[in-house]
Amino acid sequence: MDPKRIFEYARETDTILIFNGDENSVDKTFFYLTGADSGLFEHSALVVTPESVKIVTSQLEEQSARATGLEVLVFRNQEEFRDIIRKEVEGVDTIGLNYSALTLSKYKEILKMIPDKEFIDVTSSIAEARRLKTEEEISKLREAARIGSEAFERVLDRLREGMTELELAAELNYEMMKAGADGPSFRSIIAFGPNASIPHYAPGDRKLRRGDFVLMDFGALYRRYCSDITRTVVFGHASEEQKYMHQVVYEAQEAAFKVIRENANGKDADLAARNVIDSTKYKGRFIHSLGHGVGLDVHDHPALTPTLDFPLKNGMVVTVEPGIYVPKFGGVRIEDDVVVRKDGNERITTAPRDLIEVS
Amino acid sequence: MDPKRIFEYARETDTILIFNGDENSVDKTFFYLTGADSGLFEHSALVVTPESVKIVTSQLEEQSARATGLEVLVFRNQEEFRDIIRKEVEGVDTIGLNYSALTLSKYKEILKMIPDKEFIDVTSSIAEARRLKTEEEISKLREAARIGSEAFERVLDRLREGMTELELAAELNYEMMKAGADGPSFRSIIAFGPNASIPHYAPGDRKLRRGDFVLMDFGALYRRYCSDITRTVVFGHASEEQKYMHQVVYEAQEAAFKVIRENANGKDADLAARNVIDSTKYKGRFIHSLGHGVGLDVHDHPALTPTLDFPLKNGMVVTVEPGIYVPKFGGVRIEDDVVVRKDGNERITTAPRDLIEVS
Repeated sequence: MDPKRIFEYARETDTILIFNGDENSVDKTFFYLTGADSGLFEHSALVVTPESVKIVTSQLEEQSARATGLEVLVFRNQEEFRDIIRKEVEGVDTIGLNYSALTLSKYKEILKMIPDKEFIDVTSSIAEARRLKTEEEISKLREAARIGSEAFERVLDRLREGMTELELAAELNYEMMKAGADGPSFRSIIAFGPNASIPHYAPGDRKLRRGDFVLMDFGALYRRYCSDITRTVVFGHASEEQKYMHQVVYEAQEAAFKVIRENANGKDADLAARNVIDSTKYKGRFIHSLGHGVGLDVHDHPALTPTLDFPLKNGMVVTVEPGIYVPKFGGVRIEDDVVVRKDGNERITTAPRDLIEVS
Repeated sequence: MDPKRIFEYARETDTILIFNGDENSVDKTFFYLTGADSGLFEHSALVVTPESVKIVTSQLEEQSARATGLEVLVFRNQEEFRDIIRKEVEGVDTIGLNYSALTLSKYKEILKMIPDKEFIDVTSSIAEARRLKTEEEISKLREAARIGSEAFERVLDRLREGMTELELAAELNYEMMKAGADGPSFRSIIAFGPNASIPHYAPGDRKLRRGDFVLMDFGALYRRYCSDITRTVVFGHASEEQKYMHQVVYEAQEAAFKVIRENANGKDADLAARNVIDSTKYKGRFIHSLGHGVGLDVHDHPALTPTLDFPLKNGMVVTVEPGIYVPKFGGVRIEDDVVVRKDGNERITTAPRDLIEVS
């Protein structure tokens, strides 16, 4: 990725350092800027200027780093790592850091490593750049969405009375990988019956029964880009209540789709969906935000929530996922990924959205 | 988990706050202390004292939080979140924070939220507690290891000339989930032929050919605990060079196994393996550390490296994974998870370690 995209916003500096920590604190901006398909790059770093991106990494990742075509500086131990960083920022006064992806421990290390610098937080500049996807990024996101959609359609044939949520999760992940995913983009939420009322449920040993809601919230990882899709079907015949609940969520999602276009407010999209639900007996049962950006992170920028004034822009990719949750009864969520366009939006998760009764 | 395990080390305070950020900065200590099987718990927190663990979370995770049996404080917005935290630490002067899992952004939020407190870093206390596994944790790790071992043995039947690395990764993940995994514990490394020389390779479209090394580095996630296992087999007949490379790695691993027991030094285990490799023509080709702890993190504490003096203790669980990497030719790594015991170690990854030639 051209680093100028970030410096367009980060005008206060011409040098940004990206530091990865352990597996729990790898900054996805590392992959945004390098495009590295292979490698974990824990404890690696980037030296970023408007003109270049240099990778600072260990021997362990050297081959993966070189495959990017970028300049690679290899360290063999922490002393060499510090020396490389010091040398690279010689003569630089102000350095941008991504405070939102840097641990406090790492920050303290940096202060010791290069104590004579001024640091500024470039979190929002990075977020501003990353939330406007390039067409190349959109094509990866489209592929991730296609994989998710295809896997959903294939897995419907696998529903069997008595199978567990975990078994269905296994089938779904398998179908995604066979369709070209590098893996799931997050741990799939598969919830049967009343479990569908827990938005962030983790699949367990609940066995599928006739008449159950089957909520599947999952996504594919494709070249580090994520899709995020939810479909709720009924195994067997849907009751009137189930049909109505699904219909309300469907209409809420439609209402949001109608709002989403360049310069629309994210808040208004949320409220359009929320108003549909809150005008029914399910008032107050939509207990999360309408959606979120999707990209290298499953929950990328921007957020579509009732409280955040935010103008949508051409090239943003967001989820639209209204839901209704009734404890002990069940829940319905329908979630699609859409690209914001000048005159509307493009839905890239192509799986059918109508209520499916799986017989 | 009994929070006293952490306060045994963190004697400077009697209150620890654990803060989760977004998906890239969720502190696994949250799950260590709550045992929550379900839920993501982004932007949630814990108030921890020697006597109790309280979960501070949103409606979205409320049901998952209550399932733990711990006290749950639910917030509806950020203002309520701040009020809860302020109230919980009223009268407390010194608060422990896990600096290694807290982003700098979050830390700055905390400073604004509760500006009148003194903060101390409890990173090392948490690490000290977490690296000594309880028997309950070991039983989860044993199950994760069993699943990985079983999946390996089953997937050997699926090797076919012309299949891609990604296809094999799909089969392996599927076998792990069918054997009871909640998912892979990390993105599987499947490397054919020369690709096996890249330790952190990501699987791609390389097709399997007769005579290829097949390196599989993968693991299962079971109730949030990880296994991490590597086997390298040959598809077809192994050449003399391949056999020798595998034999050297096997012997290096054996040498490390002989060292690992309570009070042995982690460094000595690394050196025992490294000396075996460095006494052959592969000198210098073992380009990473011998191993690492495994637990809620794939790369947990402690690290077994040539430079870190570290006494192993009963109940630590570590990987033992020597390897040899020859660019353009290939690589061999054999990795097992072992529990450190008083008089030796228990290998919990039970898959065969001999060179398998898959016909």
